Amino acid sequence: MYEVLEVKSHIRNYSVLFADSFRESLGKDTQEKRCFFIIDRSIDRIYHEQLRDVLHPGSCFVVDATEEHKSLDYVKAVIKWLLGSDIKRNDRLIALGGGIIQDIAGFVSSILFRGIEWFFYPTTLLAQCDSCIGSKTSLNVGEFKNQLGTYYPPQHIVLDVNFLKTLSTADTRSGLGEIIKVHLLDGPDSLEYIRSEYDHSADPDTLKELIFRSLRIKKTIIEEDEFDKDRRNILNYGHTFGHAIESVTDYKVSHGQAVTVGMDIENYVSFRLQILPQGSLDLMRVPIMKNYPDFQLEEEHIAPLLAALSKDKKNVDENLTVILTRGAGEMIKMKLPLNDRLKEYINDYRKTT
Amino acid sequence: MYEVLEVKSHIRNYSVLFADSFRESLGKDTQEKRCFFIIDRSIDRIYHEQLRDVLHPGSCFVVDATEEHKSLDYVKAVIKWLLGSDIKRNDRLIALGGGIIQDIAGFVSSILFRGIEWFFYPTTLLAQCDSCIGSKTSLNVGEFKNQLGTYYPPQHIVLDVNFLKTLSTADTRSGLGEIIKVHLLDGPDSLEYIRSEYDHSADPDTLKELIFRSLRIKKTIIEEDEFDKDRRNILNYGHTFGHAIESVTDYKVSHGQAVTVGMDIENYVSFRLQILPQGSLDLMRVPIMKNYPDFQLEEEHIAPLLAALSKDKKNVDENLTVILTRGAGEMIKMKLPLNDRLKEYINDYRKTT
Repeated sequence: MYEVLEVKSHIRNYSVLFADSFRESLGKDTQEKRCFFIIDRSIDRIYHEQLRDVLHPGSCFVVDATEEHKSLDYVKAVIKWLLGSDIKRNDRLIALGGGIIQDIAGFVSSILFRGIEWFFYPTTLLAQCDSCIGSKTSLNVGEFKNQLGTYYPPQHIVLDVNFLKTLSTADTRSGLGEIIKVHLLDGPDSLEYIRSEYDHSADPDTLKELIFRSLRIKKTIIEEDEFDKDRRNILNYGHTFGHAIESVTDYKVSHGQAVTVGMDIENYVSFRLQILPQGSLDLMRVPIMKNYPDFQLEEEHIAPLLAALSKDKKNVDENLTVILTRGAGEMIKMKLPLNDRLKEYINDYRKTT
Repeated sequence: MYEVLEVKSHIRNYSVLFADSFRESLGKDTQEKRCFFIIDRSIDRIYHEQLRDVLHPGSCFVVDATEEHKSLDYVKAVIKWLLGSDIKRNDRLIALGGGIIQDIAGFVSSILFRGIEWFFYPTTLLAQCDSCIGSKTSLNVGEFKNQLGTYYPPQHIVLDVNFLKTLSTADTRSGLGEIIKVHLLDGPDSLEYIRSEYDHSADPDTLKELIFRSLRIKKTIIEEDEFDKDRRNILNYGHTFGHAIESVTDYKVSHGQAVTVGMDIENYVSFRLQILPQGSLDLMRVPIMKNYPDFQLEEEHIAPLLAALSKDKKNVDENLTVILTRGAGEMIKMKLPLNDRLKEYINDYRKTT
């Protein structure tokens, strides 16, 4: 049995519960009060029989988890369905799915009646190990990705690792990217832990332990800086270049594996700027290489990569905002000019892979 | 010179400044950082010359203040314009207008980049005396009015009573409805004050004093219960029946005057339930009658009025949630069954007008 993680928040405190059976937990939720459900279509398909006798007919909205659905238009459709189903401000919304379902359900919950209660059952590794805590919801608007959102955590997160059994390798590796990230952020002990345990992550107990540790590390950071003004910025480690990799590969590389590449590039840049010693670079690279995607950074990627970097929303002026490192547990936010020197570093990095 | 009102908020504290010249204040705002403007079309028309040299060309979005624009679709259009104009998370949004502009700009500010800085220059009496503080933003979705929103106060509210000179009588009386409301909520002294000062409200200094007093009364209530869980509910005094009056008259009676009628009905119901003595009913009726709209509740209004009441979002079960009163300063939230007795009270009320 894992302890319950209690997360402090300016919105309201909330908890993560490790459950042995999501079905049992859902049964309890629905007995407490009237519930409405937003469910990922693949979860609905896989668990249809188990869900059928827990959920009330007419209380489920099934969502295809696509980026296009992270929009105000789709949010409006969900809200119209909820209001049309006569939802009241004391009712509860329950979301089952990954990060996209979380974003849609969290945003809907934050604006309907200026905020209703919602519970989240994350079903992907990425959602379980990372996004389920931290209060953020994100929507896209046109070509602008994740530019809209609110801070509105679920009241309650129920985590059942059994969901992970049906995940694709790509989805598992995506989650492992964020697991590696927080372990590198945390310090040498966590680096050592992920270095040795990565290879056993197919074992459910090891994976559960990795999820628990990842959430515990993230919890201390978000409790200190929920609104991402300062310390929380370090969670963007690997993301400045990671987002650019996603964009350049047209999202064929998953988020967490793009972050894996992003960390590797950001470490290399830290090394070239003489912030990170060669020994630490090599040590941090061990878990990174275990999770590296089947992707080779080619010379023709460089120009679109730089273009994507210059569009990043984190960049409030001409400079690139990036998390560099002096080693595990020693991250530093820096501004780097998007110049020829950086281009040279990226090109040199390319040759090391 | 009026003191600055500082309002405490869970989101962040904010202030209301009484300014002699909005133009001077805007000039200062725009010198501090990059600003984008959302402006009511009639304000843009009336003050075009004065605004032209303060605002940067291409930085203004002019809005027709209609209920249809309080929608997710319109919010999306505003956000697309802002992102297309390359707004960054450190920039500032400034809204000039009444409650509708406030709702649109406040909602946009609360979700763009998960919250950007915004300032509000209220230009109607209703916005100056009431809605500008309290953190709420509201949107409609389809036929469901004000069911969506966020809590996101402006960082700074700049109040120039010169805007009120161009208001129509209807708009002035709408604002006076909410001014009467908070004075009745506050207690016998405030009741006495509004009773004696109402007739002088055309005088700018008296009006300014009434606005200041209204905000000061509302401030103590919202600081105690920003998220409307308990004490803040009393601000709905006059609104349960007021909203129904708006609906029945197809919004031909303004919000604040509908609230004026609403208070009168709710007082009468309190009287019939033997909560409110006849003497207090009569006393509270003095300022109410001064602001009563040119509207007569007819017998054929009763059925649609009851239908509108049963649809009210505040009613989470079969009962009507309504603020009744024992007298000025003694409001009580009650649940009333929507039954024949209530229908009889409303019909009897009709005969008293």
